[in-house]
Amino acid sequence: MAVRVIRKAFFNSAHRLFREEWDDNMNLEVFGKCSYPNYHGHNYVLELSVIGEVDRQTGYVIDLKKLEGLIQKYIIEKLDHKNLNLDVPELKGKVPTVENIAIMIYEQITPHLEGMKVQVTLHETKKNIAVYPA
Amino acid sequence: MAVRVIRKAFFNSAHRLFREEWDDNMNLEVFGKCSYPNYHGHNYVLELSVIGEVDRQTGYVIDLKKLEGLIQKYIIEKLDHKNLNLDVPELKGKVPTVENIAIMIYEQITPHLEGMKVQVTLHETKKNIAVYPA
Amino acid sequence: MAVRVIRKAFFNSAHRLFREEWDDNMNLEVFGKCSYPNYHGHNYVLELSVIGEVDRQTGYVIDLKKLEGLIQKYIIEKLDHKNLNLDVPELKGKVPTVENIAIMIYEQITPHLEGMKVQVTLHETKKNIAVYPA
Amino acid sequence: MAVRVIRKAFFNSAHRLFREEWDDNMNLEVFGKCSYPNYHGHNYVLELSVIGEVDRQTGYVIDLKKLEGLIQKYIIEKLDHKNLNLDVPELKGKVPTVENIAIMIYEQITPHLEGMKVQVTLHETKKNIAVYPA
Amino acid sequence: MAVRVIRKAFFNSAHRLFREEWDDNMNLEVFGKCSYPNYHGHNYVLELSVIGEVDRQTGYVIDLKKLEGLIQKYIIEKLDHKNLNLDVPELKGKVPTVENIAIMIYEQITPHLEGMKVQVTLHETKKNIAVYPA
Amino acid sequence: MAVRVIRKAFFNSAHRLFREEWDDNMNLEVFGKCSYPNYHGHNYVLELSVIGEVDRQTGYVIDLKKLEGLIQKYIIEKLDHKNLNLDVPELKGKVPTVENIAIMIYEQITPHLEGMKVQVTLHETKKNIAVYPA
Repeated sequence: MAVRVIRKAFFNSAHRLFREEWDDNMNLEVFGKCSYPNYHGHNYVLELSVIGEVDRQTGYVIDLKKLEGLIQKYIIEKLDHKNLNLDVPELKGKVPTVENIAIMIYEQITPHLEGMKVQVTLHETKKNIAVYPA
Repeated sequence: MAVRVIRKAFFNSAHRLFREEWDDNMNLEVFGKCSYPNYHGHNYVLELSVIGEVDRQTGYVIDLKKLEGLIQKYIIEKLDHKNLNLDVPELKGKVPTVENIAIMIYEQITPHLEGMKVQVTLHETKKNIAVYPA
Repeated sequence: MAVRVIRKAFFNSAHRLFREEWDDNMNLEVFGKCSYPNYHGHNYVLELSVIGEVDRQTGYVIDLKKLEGLIQKYIIEKLDHKNLNLDVPELKGKVPTVENIAIMIYEQITPHLEGMKVQVTLHETKKNIAVYPA
Repeated sequence: MAVRVIRKAFFNSAHRLFREEWDDNMNLEVFGKCSYPNYHGHNYVLELSVIGEVDRQTGYVIDLKKLEGLIQKYIIEKLDHKNLNLDVPELKGKVPTVENIAIMIYEQITPHLEGMKVQVTLHETKKNIAVYPA
Repeated sequence: MAVRVIRKAFFNSAHRLFREEWDDNMNLEVFGKCSYPNYHGHNYVLELSVIGEVDRQTGYVIDLKKLEGLIQKYIIEKLDHKNLNLDVPELKGKVPTVENIAIMIYEQITPHLEGMKVQVTLHETKKNIAVYPA
Repeated sequence: MAVRVIRKAFFNSAHRLFREEWDDNMNLEVFGKCSYPNYHGHNYVLELSVIGEVDRQTGYVIDLKKLEGLIQKYIIEKLDHKNLNLDVPELKGKVPTVENIAIMIYEQITPHLEGMKVQVTLHETKKNIAVYPA
């Protein structure tokens, strides 16, 4: 049977929820205070989960030091201390909700984890979390 | 692929575990100190999880402000600062274990989340948790 | 210089905030939903802190196993799975606020910790905490 | 002896650390990635601590519902979902470090807590915390 | 529908990651500082999850006091305050990674939980977690 | 008024509590399972707290990046993934209790923080904590 391993990482980013093609009132109605114009931010907590067989030599599904390196290179450097509306090309044209950021992280990291089943859990606050794929 | 979003909420309630048709000794034998007659209580932590497709306009599976409103109206107002044995008609005739409270929460909230897959995780203490459906 | 050691313990109790000599409206006005008649409850977290010199032989301010035994015998057995309004003689005539429970714990435990400086921190919820002495 | 009570609250804000009179290189040298131009953000955790005598009638140092109302009105509404560099007049001309935000919160809340000893603990991340007064 | 219940337990153990048939350089290359010769250790957090139907009389999937007793007898007594390389026959010949410890716990506990679906989640640090079966 | 800033760090170490000049029975009687011969270990959580005036230019009591560097160089490199009985000269001849490790950390770090008031809080488990100076 396969084992799931999970590695946590952290990034701090600014964002606001709004659509350019909507006016301020429409954005405020849909997104509430999350649409305030000058941004707010979060301490995001990322749990990257990888499912695979345990290597008989190492006892590892994947070397978690290597996984940490991939998360650092392909996710944290892109998102940490950045503005998710302005600084991240992969999120351009999307509302940076916790759902869309989780999908974007999944799409960025999976090409570097071929042959493994990957799942992203992203905590935006202590109360709001997204998991992709569900 | 679908995304799961999770919203947390909190309620503080009293309860005791016992069956009216059993005598005190039988209740004590089965339920231990959880059957003490004058009730004890817990800080319950609820994680309500909803699975669905991401809306292309909003980037939401469901507006978490709306989900919070539903949790508040249909769950928290029923259970918070209440006695789960005496004050909650939906639990009448049931032992208010963490399992049965989780099922009751699921049954109360799902009619208001039509077409979405719902799961309830309920923490009774730092050590005891129930998830429904499994 | 002295060292402070802290030992945590946990108890789950029911209570309500009310004064017998006040009517229901007065109690509701002052204590809000905490005065609801059939009790609610909490997972209390106790941090007992003891200040003293480090013993040169053991490296201990106090043997934390012994401190755990005292907490168990004089505090947890009195309060855990109990109703703080009905079952605890030491709280009779007092409103069982987090402040008053913290003071009661301090008064119960200090006779067994002679010659040491003691402080009680009591968490009632994730948001409400009392410390005695301040 | 007096009792300390602590109430927690939460706000999510954007900020960057920089001084207008310094150029970008100087800001980057002193503040590192915290000076990135488009802001980042945090889930701030505030612990407001108030020391006083316990009222014999209520068992309260201060009604924590009232304290929560003051925190909401004078702190959370000012800071939550705001940009600490642009939206908060009380922080104008100051670098919004965790130290300076803690001092600003103390100065805003103390006029509404006359005669009580107040202390602010502010968590910016899981690793960085400030306490004022020390 | 079935309910999942989860019980948490804790143990503190020493270990190092290395293969006897590899020399020190090879071990250091593969396992890094986790291979240091004199051991290091962790506060392991175990979540044992059991899926089953809710008993109509008790409201339990399984009596969590009984489950705690099984965890204590078959897992904690074997692993707590032990050296996972030297003291645990069931781990002999295996690298005591978080994956292999999770599998070993699953194999030790399942014979005592016949007819129930079991899953082990093991936290080695705040950042490293394994789940078996996946 | 001065501000206290706190920086957290983490290390994972093995240890056992025993005195060489005592026989095994005496060690077992005093230190219990903490004296088991092949070591156990912990995920230690260190909170280093520094009190000082806020610099008017930077808004810092101390640059927390610099403080993190000092903690890394003088504490984490000495203790992380090490055996506290065998690998740490500064603890030789001392029982590595949480009290003694906290004192040792204080003595190692204070020479690099001249003119500032320092306090060490060390969490050995979720239940056992030491603070030095008290």
